[in-house]
Amino acid sequence: MLFVPKDPDFERRVRDSFARQRFMSTLGARLTSVAPGEAEIELGFDDALTQQHGFLHAGVVTSAIDSACGYAALSLMPVGAAVLSVEFKVNLMAPAKGLRFRAIGRVVRAGRTLSVCTGELRASSGEGETVIAVMQATMMTVEQRPGISD
Amino acid sequence: MLFVPKDPDFERRVRDSFARQRFMSTLGARLTSVAPGEAEIELGFDDALTQQHGFLHAGVVTSAIDSACGYAALSLMPVGAAVLSVEFKVNLMAPAKGLRFRAIGRVVRAGRTLSVCTGELRASSGEGETVIAVMQATMMTVEQRPGISD
Amino acid sequence: MLFVPKDPDFERRVRDSFARQRFMSTLGARLTSVAPGEAEIELGFDDALTQQHGFLHAGVVTSAIDSACGYAALSLMPVGAAVLSVEFKVNLMAPAKGLRFRAIGRVVRAGRTLSVCTGELRASSGEGETVIAVMQATMMTVEQRPGISD
Amino acid sequence: MLFVPKDPDFERRVRDSFARQRFMSTLGARLTSVAPGEAEIELGFDDALTQQHGFLHAGVVTSAIDSACGYAALSLMPVGAAVLSVEFKVNLMAPAKGLRFRAIGRVVRAGRTLSVCTGELRASSGEGETVIAVMQATMMTVEQRPGISD
Repeated sequence: MLFVPKDPDFERRVRDSFARQRFMSTLGARLTSVAPGEAEIELGFDDALTQQHGFLHAGVVTSAIDSACGYAALSLMPVGAAVLSVEFKVNLMAPAKGLRFRAIGRVVRAGRTLSVCTGELRASSGEGETVIAVMQATMMTVEQRPGISD
Repeated sequence: MLFVPKDPDFERRVRDSFARQRFMSTLGARLTSVAPGEAEIELGFDDALTQQHGFLHAGVVTSAIDSACGYAALSLMPVGAAVLSVEFKVNLMAPAKGLRFRAIGRVVRAGRTLSVCTGELRASSGEGETVIAVMQATMMTVEQRPGISD
Repeated sequence: MLFVPKDPDFERRVRDSFARQRFMSTLGARLTSVAPGEAEIELGFDDALTQQHGFLHAGVVTSAIDSACGYAALSLMPVGAAVLSVEFKVNLMAPAKGLRFRAIGRVVRAGRTLSVCTGELRASSGEGETVIAVMQATMMTVEQRPGISD
Repeated sequence: MLFVPKDPDFERRVRDSFARQRFMSTLGARLTSVAPGEAEIELGFDDALTQQHGFLHAGVVTSAIDSACGYAALSLMPVGAAVLSVEFKVNLMAPAKGLRFRAIGRVVRAGRTLSVCTGELRASSGEGETVIAVMQATMMTVEQRPGISD
């Protein structure tokens, strides 16, 4: 889908906001690309992020895709608006095994108040990528709420 | 709902599995109670877990409720089985502000292969608790899969 | 949860709106009770509503719970507002077998713009009820949109 | 995605099963195409299917996409297996206005027990189509359960 951003400076705004997400740094995640209606986040495998079987915890998988979807939505929001996750649903299709993980978020519909996004997490260990999780999410444009800005 | 656990030693099994979830320790989360079909996890506020507005990241909220739901489901599974999250959906009803957070997971239906759970996260800052997120989740009983046990 | 309705005439408004839902009449569904933040819809088994194995179609199950959740939310909305379903998620825990079905929708959080509801469908054949599906839904308060009122 | 069906006669099997869904006929829905991992269902606008504002009821939208996803999944299942909806989540992105509606279901991952699908509903009134709803669904392969076959 082709989107025209309302804020020409959208990439800097998304990158600044991502830099303020302390939890992304705790996960060792980096924002690797931003485009109108799309964002991509990468992270590497780390023992500190595992569940009981040694795979990436479902919550880590979700965190990365949620942030990618949120920033995909923010990239299309007007200057001064902030993004909040309203809700999301994740299907964990395969154990999160791998060395590198790439979360991709894309806007499906950008509304005035609500945006709908889809996202996925891809795992790789060298040769090719596997989609291990898919998300469907609703993001909210928040305007003029004290203490909430992006 | 009243459930009869198939494994009389369910609490030890759940606690051992939780102790192997390295990510829970990264979040500073503790398993505070386990009962047949129910589990509770607590964590405190920590700057390292925040999103861009200074609230707990939606992924942290989700991680805690997912683990609570997963262990609620595991508490009813037969000896030797492992639990995997199939999918979940979270509604984030209010910003995750507070000093302490309590995630509660409960089994709604325990099937042979799939269990359905509901969960919530409650925030507190001293006086009373607020439910800030609710989850509906599907958990899978995994048996005789090499490398996957709880 | 205890809610105070903004519109003292909420029950009449919910009942009038339900009566305009032509699809509820196609399903043979009746609105059996309305309270602040809660609504209940009943329908009977009918061959015309079945899927390929002779159970009630998942879409029928969903339709009844969605309407119950929507009217639970509408019962708390201000005069002149309308309700729209933003999204919902349903777990179908058992085949929809039975003679009578009862869908119950309850508001978990009533926000200015968005309300979060949970719902369920119970089946009965005489002796007791079984919960066969659970829903988690987001409803929107729509105000001053031409052609949309309840 | 490219899928190889386990049952070479998958299309006949899907069409026979669809023909037994009495509810699809109540909705005036037709199965317009079946391919490995994909199915498409069409229906026209009908006053009998509306909610209170005169749009197609969210439950009708869901019913069509759920069936499309279910048959997309069934197209890849082995001979003798049946499909059941485990759960789904729908985002209703715009009012279901239009003369014709097209539900498309696609398999994202076909597992031995569980399949993950995405689906959408497109509305048209002559000039072009609009995606008005998206679904993410989990379908189950049911084998050797008495009374359940497709």
